[in-house]
Amino acid sequence: MVTGGLGFIGSNLTHALVAAVASVAVIDALVPGHGGSDHNIAGLDVDVLRCEIGDPAVRDVLRDADVVFNLAGQVSHIDSMDDPLLDLHLNATTHAAFLEHLRAVNPTARVVHTSTRQVYGVPTTTPVAEDHPAHPVDVNGVAKLAGEQLHIVYANAHSMPITSLRLTNVYGPRQRLTSDRLGFLPVFFRMALLDQPIRIFGDGTQRRDCLHVSDVVDAIVAATDDRLAGQVLNVGSPRDESLGSIAKLIVDATGSTGGFTFVPWPPEQQRIDIGSFRTDSTRLSSAVGWQAKIDLTDGVADTVDFYRGDPWYLSST
Amino acid sequence: MVTGGLGFIGSNLTHALVAAVASVAVIDALVPGHGGSDHNIAGLDVDVLRCEIGDPAVRDVLRDADVVFNLAGQVSHIDSMDDPLLDLHLNATTHAAFLEHLRAVNPTARVVHTSTRQVYGVPTTTPVAEDHPAHPVDVNGVAKLAGEQLHIVYANAHSMPITSLRLTNVYGPRQRLTSDRLGFLPVFFRMALLDQPIRIFGDGTQRRDCLHVSDVVDAIVAATDDRLAGQVLNVGSPRDESLGSIAKLIVDATGSTGGFTFVPWPPEQQRIDIGSFRTDSTRLSSAVGWQAKIDLTDGVADTVDFYRGDPWYLSST
Repeated sequence: MVTGGLGFIGSNLTHALVAAVASVAVIDALVPGHGGSDHNIAGLDVDVLRCEIGDPAVRDVLRDADVVFNLAGQVSHIDSMDDPLLDLHLNATTHAAFLEHLRAVNPTARVVHTSTRQVYGVPTTTPVAEDHPAHPVDVNGVAKLAGEQLHIVYANAHSMPITSLRLTNVYGPRQRLTSDRLGFLPVFFRMALLDQPIRIFGDGTQRRDCLHVSDVVDAIVAATDDRLAGQVLNVGSPRDESLGSIAKLIVDATGSTGGFTFVPWPPEQQRIDIGSFRTDSTRLSSAVGWQAKIDLTDGVADTVDFYRGDPWYLSST
Repeated sequence: MVTGGLGFIGSNLTHALVAAVASVAVIDALVPGHGGSDHNIAGLDVDVLRCEIGDPAVRDVLRDADVVFNLAGQVSHIDSMDDPLLDLHLNATTHAAFLEHLRAVNPTARVVHTSTRQVYGVPTTTPVAEDHPAHPVDVNGVAKLAGEQLHIVYANAHSMPITSLRLTNVYGPRQRLTSDRLGFLPVFFRMALLDQPIRIFGDGTQRRDCLHVSDVVDAIVAATDDRLAGQVLNVGSPRDESLGSIAKLIVDATGSTGGFTFVPWPPEQQRIDIGSFRTDSTRLSSAVGWQAKIDLTDGVADTVDFYRGDPWYLSST
């Protein structure tokens, strides 16, 4: 089972699982603006239950699952500040309800939950390993941390085999490109694909480690290893790049005539900015051998090819 | 304004504020079983609004407040595991709504929120300072951590002068004695006052630092110092004691004929137990000079005197 299976990472995971001969069921609430769409899994033979993960209807699907990939959630930092209650609902409360459903009908299912590096807040040291303090700077970070820690409480107090992964910035096919509120990567791709200028907040020296969604899918599947039950692990790239370099790379890959420019930070973004970030994924790599395989140049080229071949992503709302 | 002002710590704070000539308004949802009662502030001239802190009705009271003491919440670890959604509602979601109300009508009010040492989970080192990792072992710890971190997000992102205090185990007058689900201290006092045996889980060597509610009230008032805005600080006692010693002290103070006995851990308690704990409150002491003044022997004697003088606490439900 994949929750959030119609969304960006969830649909890529679903494609991979179907290709690996798994029988897959998807749960997705199709929250407007979050990027979930039937288009993302068009042509795949999967059952889709359209409801929130806290809905008691999920029990019927959960009952038979061997592995549960719990990817449902809201990712927008900006939206979380505009509507804190909705973010808490989608990233924490519904996960508590989901875990109760799971505990009631299938407590031995292997579970992988996706959290975010946003839980760390502003790094005091980099690269950031799992023992770095978690001091979120926005409601999204608070709510995702609560959702993640709920999973770990259930793992320990109820002996359920659950793992949570803190994901870095992810890019690749099937991401919602038409929103300005889901992180900088889809915006950069959209502007370049439309030959419009990429606007970089600040001076472009801020750094991020970006991961192609295929590498993330590999990490999520690798995290089903039983040795990781009860653990929280980072998933990121060992290579970080400046936002200026990332923009240039995307402009070069697309041949965009829009180029990129530097603009002052919008106040509502700056107040929740975390500065530069680089992920230390040593714990996951050491435990199960996972490593990022796709470098940024290849990943960007693959991503551009995908969106050139499916222009729906540039027009969907 | 004091939220949770009809409860244990909130009512003691309200008594202290009224004695210090402050004009006090109380908000309390009187959630059954939590210990909130009009009895706790009987005879005091304060306005009481009976609703949840997320209710829009609080805006009328918030608008005029100079200082907001946000003490509302659920404290029971056991209840949080039985009803995770209610705990998240009372300790996190309603606080997000409350902060939105505050931001809308009175963003410059000085705010002190009470969190808990339960957010740390099992200590890896003692004494536990604020930079100790927060790995809660139960839903209560997760939800309180989320509520606390929401306050800090509002302090930083919205420049609101907010402080959160992580409180250790608190005892003293006006605590609900008739529940077995609000920590060990009220149970120990009740059993001793009723000449019934105090039952200690395990071998009694587990240690806690306990704080008299008067010291906690002093810390909460001291935390209104503007230099503490945006900070999370511990509030505990520098002296820790074994549960066996604490039981003996209470038995001696009451002259209880029930004594105390050791019993095996109930599974539902053991699965969320954190072992021994001792708080490092150096940050608060250094910043504003607060220190615990009441040693455990004197505090227990005062507490026993209080309940002997007001037997309502042994019969209220």
